[in-house]
Amino acid sequence: MQQGFVVPGNMAMLTDLYELTMAASYFEHRQNDRATFDLFVRTLPPQRSYLMFAGLEQALHYLTHLSFDDDAIRYLRSTRLFSASFLSYLRTVRFRGHVDAMPEGTVFFPQEPVMRVTGNIIESQIVETFLLNTINLQSLIATKASRVVEAAAGRPVVDFGLRRAQGMDAGLKVARAAYLAGCAGTSNVLAGQHYGIPIFGTMAHSFVQSFPSEMASFRAFVETFPTGTTLLIDTYETLQGARQAVVVARELAQRGHRLGGVRLDSGDLLALSRSVRRILDQQRLHDVQIFASGNLTEHRIAELIRRGAPIDAFGVGTDLSVSADAPSLDVVYKMSEVVRGGRRFPTLKLSPKKRTYPGRKQVHRREQHGRYIGDMLALEEERVPGRPLLRPVLRGGRLVGPLPSLSSVRAHAAAERAKLPSRLRGLGKAHSYPVRLSAGVRRAVQEFRRRLREVPSEQRDVSMP
Amino acid sequence: MQQGFVVPGNMAMLTDLYELTMAASYFEHRQNDRATFDLFVRTLPPQRSYLMFAGLEQALHYLTHLSFDDDAIRYLRSTRLFSASFLSYLRTVRFRGHVDAMPEGTVFFPQEPVMRVTGNIIESQIVETFLLNTINLQSLIATKASRVVEAAAGRPVVDFGLRRAQGMDAGLKVARAAYLAGCAGTSNVLAGQHYGIPIFGTMAHSFVQSFPSEMASFRAFVETFPTGTTLLIDTYETLQGARQAVVVARELAQRGHRLGGVRLDSGDLLALSRSVRRILDQQRLHDVQIFASGNLTEHRIAELIRRGAPIDAFGVGTDLSVSADAPSLDVVYKMSEVVRGGRRFPTLKLSPKKRTYPGRKQVHRREQHGRYIGDMLALEEERVPGRPLLRPVLRGGRLVGPLPSLSSVRAHAAAERAKLPSRLRGLGKAHSYPVRLSAGVRRAVQEFRRRLREVPSEQRDVSMP
Repeated sequence: MQQGFVVPGNMAMLTDLYELTMAASYFEHRQNDRATFDLFVRTLPPQRSYLMFAGLEQALHYLTHLSFDDDAIRYLRSTRLFSASFLSYLRTVRFRGHVDAMPEGTVFFPQEPVMRVTGNIIESQIVETFLLNTINLQSLIATKASRVVEAAAGRPVVDFGLRRAQGMDAGLKVARAAYLAGCAGTSNVLAGQHYGIPIFGTMAHSFVQSFPSEMASFRAFVETFPTGTTLLIDTYETLQGARQAVVVARELAQRGHRLGGVRLDSGDLLALSRSVRRILDQQRLHDVQIFASGNLTEHRIAELIRRGAPIDAFGVGTDLSVSADAPSLDVVYKMSEVVRGGRRFPTLKLSPKKRTYPGRKQVHRREQHGRYIGDMLALEEERVPGRPLLRPVLRGGRLVGPLPSLSSVRAHAAAERAKLPSRLRGLGKAHSYPVRLSAGVRRAVQEFRRRLREVPSEQRDVSMP
Repeated sequence: MQQGFVVPGNMAMLTDLYELTMAASYFEHRQNDRATFDLFVRTLPPQRSYLMFAGLEQALHYLTHLSFDDDAIRYLRSTRLFSASFLSYLRTVRFRGHVDAMPEGTVFFPQEPVMRVTGNIIESQIVETFLLNTINLQSLIATKASRVVEAAAGRPVVDFGLRRAQGMDAGLKVARAAYLAGCAGTSNVLAGQHYGIPIFGTMAHSFVQSFPSEMASFRAFVETFPTGTTLLIDTYETLQGARQAVVVARELAQRGHRLGGVRLDSGDLLALSRSVRRILDQQRLHDVQIFASGNLTEHRIAELIRRGAPIDAFGVGTDLSVSADAPSLDVVYKMSEVVRGGRRFPTLKLSPKKRTYPGRKQVHRREQHGRYIGDMLALEEERVPGRPLLRPVLRGGRLVGPLPSLSSVRAHAAAERAKLPSRLRGLGKAHSYPVRLSAGVRRAVQEFRRRLREVPSEQRDVSMP
């Protein structure tokens, strides 16, 4: 039986083969000068008016642990693609470059670099695949979770998505990104252990089924967990389940305990929550909460709240854990500058619909009366109004300082969402936010195009100054 | 800085909290008799007429390595949810039950158990979350990949999805499931190392950009990789890129080498592939292949082939790696039988739209003239026509024999697809396949409903015989 999990000390080999074939060719041509790459999103997914940046901590962990171990080199040798001298060199490669990044939890927009990587071209190129993988997943989920939390309008939302998350790592990272973006916690026990995220959970239908009756299952469960427990009441017939929960709540009260809530996991949640609330209130169980789950999305939650459903908290599974309506971001990692012979050359791509902007850039954000009013993409050396968002995080491959705790990232994310123009926080039609190009960036693009026209296409040096 | 990756020896803690709270309550009530759970998919995702089973090997690895280590117990103690006696017991829990499963690569349909787990109720319940997570991901991707391979009609398809896969584990499992379902290989180097999957890769736009000219980049690359290399020709202007590839191909030929192909990664792939083919053929470079990538889906590939695009192979990224049009399966794990006091009680759920079938079941499949003609869901002890699909894989927590190699699973998957009725292999509208219930299953459901009506609802014993 093959080993089911991969548990290497680092993730250097989790990369596309072309990163290594390019590295080999750079190495053979002794072309390993500095280059700068921008990690950014090209376009917004449907209905999104903003994105939330997440995954930086894991990206930095990867960069600071990158190395190709003996097993890796042995495997690469077996492919017969690489020279012995390149493989010897690869064994020594570490990431020793600089990274500037937005803080996790920051809201961002298309074309804005969230990470800017500068280092020798081989090490900066090899890391592309992993950085895209980790930033894509967590930013995707943080963005989705931010919408779900917005929809719940202050009611707690719990991540229930582990079973449908796309793999083990996604299960963990969904819990992290969802919490960061405002969820109250997760059902994922390992995420609780590993990230210190609050964990939630009660019972499944199988628990109810395994007892001779629903009532017997309820009594057994509260015997084990007498305080603040939530009972799942929809295994057979929801209103009947609610009445049995009432009996259990009274029995608990006689022993000085309190039933925490009941959970609805199927059916018409609006009608059922109203009926169940009535059953509870008639018995003066006003403080027994109603928890709802079952194929919820930000739109269903918003609709339930708009129609006054007496639901106190939501569990969201699949839709959150795979960002079902938009399961990927258009995130890319593009070279914006390369050094040759000691001179800096801005670079850009002209492929249709895949334009990039040249040069080392900074993102500046302006604010008025506590709301963001517009961003500007500028060259690093330009002075333009607004607060710069990219800050140094790695210098020479080392962290410039301690990273913020997950709870402070979560507080930052909440502050960020609060500063968005309110139209951007809507859940339906997307609204645009102004991201302008500085005079310097526009001049660099024009300059590049002019040069391109001047040179005969056969010998085009597209980055010649 | 927190640890970025989780690398425990086993994945016991990657579970929903409710699996553990239920376990605690079963433990306190000394209710740990045998139960049987079915893992199945309730409904087909849009456009799918069949599903392909994958992920069993990883599921079995998990089951045979499950244990709660000291760190896990320490964390669980810190939550103050569990008694000391339960935590002592949990430290000793292993999976010692039986598993019957379809072989990986088997096609299956809604309501059909792909895995049947029988064991004491605590260990069989605790594994729910992980089993759903791993079977969901790989079966989802194998099903999607099977469609993409079908669309490519014999042309190789390579998984390019690592950068947009939902996390590290998904990156690996997508490569595995895609290969299993018929892809030729992957760009993912770690998947090559770990699973022995063929790896593919050439160059990125950044490589072209980092040289003074496109031509310089092509010459440098073939100097490092003189044989069978593919050049990316769309960084600036595709037809110009093709002409420069022709020059490089001629230079290579003079040195006794051969250019493998050119890659198109943007623009109108039909028109560009035709123009590029013409440029290559005019120079008698008939054996230089055209490789296409860039936002491909099974539908775009089918359309390109239908319109005669001269494309020899496809690279498919995001759409394959997240199954973008259907990013999750409606996979569930439901109790079908529980033993109490030595007697077997079939169980079922009556929640709206969440019906389950009671009893320990087997899936029987009939075949005629080399094509599958219909399945039947029967009780284990019934004798019905057709080949039984669920086979013993674990007995008492141990593997009953060696698992098939990935390449033999891949061969099985190809044979399975070939046996599907041809209407089911179409990519557009879904077609149905007959899955019938045996007399025994229908009788068990009726019996259950009858009992439910007879007992006053307050004391309903829904599994009383």
